[in-house]
Amino acid sequence: MGRPRTPLLSAERIAEAALSLVQSTGGFTMPGVAQKLKVRPSSLYNHVSSRDEIVELLRERAMSEVELPADDPERPWREVVADIMRSYRRSFARYPQLIPLLTEHAVNSTHAITMYNALAVTLARAGFDAADTLRAITLMDSFVLGAALDVAAPDEPWQSSAQVGPELAAALATGAPKPQRADDAFEFGLAVLLRGLRPAL
Amino acid sequence: MGRPRTPLLSAERIAEAALSLVQSTGGFTMPGVAQKLKVRPSSLYNHVSSRDEIVELLRERAMSEVELPADDPERPWREVVADIMRSYRRSFARYPQLIPLLTEHAVNSTHAITMYNALAVTLARAGFDAADTLRAITLMDSFVLGAALDVAAPDEPWQSSAQVGPELAAALATGAPKPQRADDAFEFGLAVLLRGLRPAL
Repeated sequence: MGRPRTPLLSAERIAEAALSLVQSTGGFTMPGVAQKLKVRPSSLYNHVSSRDEIVELLRERAMSEVELPADDPERPWREVVADIMRSYRRSFARYPQLIPLLTEHAVNSTHAITMYNALAVTLARAGFDAADTLRAITLMDSFVLGAALDVAAPDEPWQSSAQVGPELAAALATGAPKPQRADDAFEFGLAVLLRGLRPAL
Repeated sequence: MGRPRTPLLSAERIAEAALSLVQSTGGFTMPGVAQKLKVRPSSLYNHVSSRDEIVELLRERAMSEVELPADDPERPWREVVADIMRSYRRSFARYPQLIPLLTEHAVNSTHAITMYNALAVTLARAGFDAADTLRAITLMDSFVLGAALDVAAPDEPWQSSAQVGPELAAALATGAPKPQRADDAFEFGLAVLLRGLRPAL
């Protein structure tokens, strides 16, 4: 007979509870996570060292579907960067509520560092110097995270109103229903970015 | 003598309370706002019609420091767009926690529509067709909101670790301390974007 089975506490379950709190309330605290799991806050520390470690577990989850292309020095760098950015956006678009939490913490997870390494290698090979490599990676981050938030935007991100002028009204009328609108805008933005990015050779 | 003075309930105070909840917990509910203001939830509805109206009040606040350049059809369109984007980022960077909340609601506030009108007029004048105008505005939105989140990022957004490869390490070593790093990266991204954006004439 014994006690009813309860799943063992684990880093995985702790991250799951934190994610659910972020999705319902926008944030999480250690006491909130403990309450959700019906354990004492001190029990959490048998599995994670700190709140920061939970944030990194959430980052791993947001990045879990990022796929890196095979390393091929012969492939044009713009194609490699485009593949990474598409996959990065797709993975993050599953968890838009995590984005501000993740950006306010320093990146310190294996998945993430692996992706940033791949971008840095690709840009360095293309002839970007170290300073422009950092700037270009920051630009890609900003664009991808903004675009991931756009995936969660309503079908019509702008409401029609008397204040909408004719030029804006004409533009809004071209917006296809989601998810096509967001996907179409992302591909346009990606093309603009790759056209504008040039190594300072 | 009479009762101690308490500030009158107003849409302004309601928005203030919602903002403070978003900043501390990441989100807000009507009962939460009522509790914070020590009033009954039903009292809120004497001042705002819905939760959506509070979201739009928060959008107005996030956009309150957006300054639009004087309308000058002779000025190069890239300069006009650059002015608007700089001011848009600066204004939103004050409230990074609001960003996911605002992007998940359709835009329906005067400040915001006025800015989007200005962008649409500028792009249409530059020769962008209606579909590309919507795509370009979406790109600017994604980039600016991502860059506003970057302003709230830590001084060193990536932690050094054994996994950081030599190319990424060299790039990270060039990052000046905030706010210079984020500002510098934003100006680089803005230049890339404006170089890549071209009307399909």
